[in-house]
Amino acid sequence: MNKALVLLSGGQDSTTSLYWALVSKAFPKIEALIIDYGQRHQIEIEAAKKISTLAKVPYTVLSTKLLSKIGDSALIGDGDVSAKHRNGNLPASFVPGRNILFLTIAAMIAYKRGIHNIIIGVCQTDYSGYPDCRAETINFMQSTLSLGMDWEFEIFTPMMWLSKKEEVILGNSFPGCMEALAFSHTCYEGQFPPCGKCPACVLRAKGFKEAGIPDPLIERAKKDGHNL
Amino acid sequence: MNKALVLLSGGQDSTTSLYWALVSKAFPKIEALIIDYGQRHQIEIEAAKKISTLAKVPYTVLSTKLLSKIGDSALIGDGDVSAKHRNGNLPASFVPGRNILFLTIAAMIAYKRGIHNIIIGVCQTDYSGYPDCRAETINFMQSTLSLGMDWEFEIFTPMMWLSKKEEVILGNSFPGCMEALAFSHTCYEGQFPPCGKCPACVLRAKGFKEAGIPDPLIERAKKDGHNL
Repeated sequence: MNKALVLLSGGQDSTTSLYWALVSKAFPKIEALIIDYGQRHQIEIEAAKKISTLAKVPYTVLSTKLLSKIGDSALIGDGDVSAKHRNGNLPASFVPGRNILFLTIAAMIAYKRGIHNIIIGVCQTDYSGYPDCRAETINFMQSTLSLGMDWEFEIFTPMMWLSKKEEVILGNSFPGCMEALAFSHTCYEGQFPPCGKCPACVLRAKGFKEAGIPDPLIERAKKDGHNL
Repeated sequence: MNKALVLLSGGQDSTTSLYWALVSKAFPKIEALIIDYGQRHQIEIEAAKKISTLAKVPYTVLSTKLLSKIGDSALIGDGDVSAKHRNGNLPASFVPGRNILFLTIAAMIAYKRGIHNIIIGVCQTDYSGYPDCRAETINFMQSTLSLGMDWEFEIFTPMMWLSKKEEVILGNSFPGCMEALAFSHTCYEGQFPPCGKCPACVLRAKGFKEAGIPDPLIERAKKDGHNL
């Protein structure tokens, strides 16, 4: 078994995927790749770094302005009505195909480091207008990368078919995962404590509630004296 | 039929592909995408701009440091012996998977502009250790992008199965193509007039010689007073 590169965003899905990789013990070495693409909230990058440190996994932060350049209306020009964002909660710099880009970047780095396994927290169950989270897309991506780089890649998507409830129950079984999730970031508003009202907060809260497990992020906020 | 986006490097293959797109008249509108990824020689970017202008095709230059960051040994660290470059003529910033990255970027921009057709000058015939130039890779890439962005892409590779000789003969049949090829750039040394000795110059010269057509780039150099 070979080393693995985990795409770590600092969110719940990628954090749980990282612990899945750690617990499965299938990988002799695990590294995290954090892509700083000018997220609206820098708190996401800080979350990902903190989680890597908690997991004792070395990380690389790759900064790129590519997404904001592609998303920049000054570059793109007018008249792209056919390409309107379907999700109003996405930042202006969001561009469809983001996970394809991230997987390509991960594969290029993995190749250079002699890594065959890439782990990404995409999830088809909560599929909300992101076709690049679908299993079929990932399968084709794996073939494209393997053929195009003459290097056998395996893309692992341990969250693909889990509901948020199942994801919480799974994460709760992984030693250290809840401690890490206490520092994960989900809120679209970029707040700590989380706003509790945006779609991302609501979805996360629902998963923990259905699993009957308190969200360690909320517990941490309470411990910090926040009234939630 | 829909608009088309041509990945234009300023080299012979992409220039001939651009004129194929213009002559085929299948596309009501054609745009060029020039990716400035920190090429060793800025002459390539200038060549691509000049060719776009000659072809009366609007162009966008997208600058990204991503490739040099991925290729940077400071980022990558040591021990990547398995990933040694097979081609000693490639710049240090070269990273396998480059065309996958470029096609992903092109697709993201095409989506935003409502474009379904992407044209790229990759060529399997002269396949020299670049697995991302292969037809099979491009086919899987097309499926990946179409699925992952929920947008039907068609990737055209008009040079795929041509020898350099056939490419010259084809280009010679396209009005304006030879005038544009006079400003294309091929030489690995980044020189004008071309060095004539590097593998790229030798391959290009062979194609023109076998086709029995003088290379307009060399003709232009002679007209400029260079003794070749």
